[in-house]
Amino acid sequence: MTSTNQQIRLAARPSGLPKPSDWELISEPAPSPDEGEFAVAISHLSIDPAMRGWMNAGASYIEPVEIGAVMRAGGVGQVITSRHPGFAAGDHVYGAFGVQEVACSDGAGVSKIDPTLAPVQTYLGALGMPGLTAYFGLLDVGRLQEGDTVVVSGAAGAVGSVAGQIAKLKGCRTIGIAGGEDKCRWLTDELGFDAAIDYKAETVAVALREHAPDRVDLFFDNVGGEILDAVLTRLARGARIVICGAISQYNAEQPRGPANYLALLVSRASMTGMVVFDYVSRYPEAIAQLAGWLRDGRLVSREQIVDGGVPAFPDALLKLFAGENTGKLVLAVQ
Amino acid sequence: MTSTNQQIRLAARPSGLPKPSDWELISEPAPSPDEGEFAVAISHLSIDPAMRGWMNAGASYIEPVEIGAVMRAGGVGQVITSRHPGFAAGDHVYGAFGVQEVACSDGAGVSKIDPTLAPVQTYLGALGMPGLTAYFGLLDVGRLQEGDTVVVSGAAGAVGSVAGQIAKLKGCRTIGIAGGEDKCRWLTDELGFDAAIDYKAETVAVALREHAPDRVDLFFDNVGGEILDAVLTRLARGARIVICGAISQYNAEQPRGPANYLALLVSRASMTGMVVFDYVSRYPEAIAQLAGWLRDGRLVSREQIVDGGVPAFPDALLKLFAGENTGKLVLAVQ
Repeated sequence: MTSTNQQIRLAARPSGLPKPSDWELISEPAPSPDEGEFAVAISHLSIDPAMRGWMNAGASYIEPVEIGAVMRAGGVGQVITSRHPGFAAGDHVYGAFGVQEVACSDGAGVSKIDPTLAPVQTYLGALGMPGLTAYFGLLDVGRLQEGDTVVVSGAAGAVGSVAGQIAKLKGCRTIGIAGGEDKCRWLTDELGFDAAIDYKAETVAVALREHAPDRVDLFFDNVGGEILDAVLTRLARGARIVICGAISQYNAEQPRGPANYLALLVSRASMTGMVVFDYVSRYPEAIAQLAGWLRDGRLVSREQIVDGGVPAFPDALLKLFAGENTGKLVLAVQ
Repeated sequence: MTSTNQQIRLAARPSGLPKPSDWELISEPAPSPDEGEFAVAISHLSIDPAMRGWMNAGASYIEPVEIGAVMRAGGVGQVITSRHPGFAAGDHVYGAFGVQEVACSDGAGVSKIDPTLAPVQTYLGALGMPGLTAYFGLLDVGRLQEGDTVVVSGAAGAVGSVAGQIAKLKGCRTIGIAGGEDKCRWLTDELGFDAAIDYKAETVAVALREHAPDRVDLFFDNVGGEILDAVLTRLARGARIVICGAISQYNAEQPRGPANYLALLVSRASMTGMVVFDYVSRYPEAIAQLAGWLRDGRLVSREQIVDGGVPAFPDALLKLFAGENTGKLVLAVQ
């Protein structure tokens, strides 16, 4: 273990895509835990579309990251020193440790993870926030019914890939929308989606006419923008749209709203926003279910791991907005 | 009773606001009912924002009006001749009789109305589709709860004025958005709204900060556009938006979507479309309730009656889109 701690701090609030000058790479002495705390050596950090929102000023579902503060990030790692009765050296943990190598924590929001169930980085993917978001978004917010036609955007991403697989497991016709032939092939050939639409090569509204002849009962949207507008033209009566995110809009100076939103009226449909934190009391139920499906091979978790440690964080985040990841994008720290 | 029947037929599909050349005024011999039919002398016609949508080609929640057909309109009138066992001369009726003076009907979709309960034109307002839309939109789709802060747009219109009054009756803080001082004064002084925002004179988002300090639990939207975007900035956690209409967008060449729709995510809120026809089996329950409130003076129905008969229809419709009406806009036919 190094005695220094590299960190990425927020230097400026970006306009549009984050630039190198929006970040500062700092090297500090590694922190020591106070009484009631423990220190974690972080092994993997989650690279997450929501990070872009945390960089903006103003209230959202979570406080913004302050200028000069360590960038917020979920991570997994191992406890190296503990002065906390609930955590011991050697424990594997998940928490919002930030973009750094070593974090001290009083345990708030930290959970222990079981590396015998799945590799630790899977707790940033299918067994972490993305998997939980997919689970509660589809089943609770989206009120998934067997036999539904389900469309997932950002389907090759961390949340979308799990959402589509859960829809299949539950007996739904499942259509993924993703960018590029490779991602689409992964969805149909490896994850079992019934169809995949390559939005870079196809007109989504036209492709939906073919793949969703009975229209769309549930749309799990990670993307927003033109794709949301296209799916709005194909809603079934009583359709539910789950607004999980809108990666196409996070860097837009002038975000665009869904011009076709009056389809909600025509189809007596709903559009509902969700934040996974609201389901914290039910995480154990969901993780048990997701871990069972993983163990049985009915659910595939894929993490795309970027090397280079903490200094590589700014570039890793840009990969996400360029749509370069398939599955969960993870930064290997050490 | 005249022996001719003046009608307004759709001559062309408008682009933007309907022009005189989109209509044709025709005078025909008055029709006689076949066996199983009855003839109605129409006394009042409903002038309705939804009419603009019916003039467009393409499927919506209802078939478009064909070019050359009598313009669709709800109306009230009295049976003059009947060869139908269920209707007798003298009966007062409501139905989608079209923009004409005399209609023959087989009774489909026609209901008898009681002129002792309220003036017949009230069956085009608080006891008709507008009142029913307000009732089911607020109570069912919007899941109104006592104590909610409720915002209604188009609040001085036929639907909005009833929606706001129901919200007050149910113990909610009720804020109306309308255009102009007179309408706003009517809302607060005569209908009992807690506050009214004049969108022509005030910035809606700013005014909402004052009038909805605890944010907005339920937004009943008849308007869309900038007003919808403004209310999206003030949603309470778990807010419900009922999409009843979007009069600001019906004549737009390029409709705009709500750019702030990601507020649904931040607030875990929903936006749900509705069409009153889905509640037809429950109309009697709602009409009994609304009529009771009217009788007790707890609900005010206001109809603004335009004279001039069938030939005045095109201008009457433009009044609606110019926001010139307070309460339900009705065309007196004879």
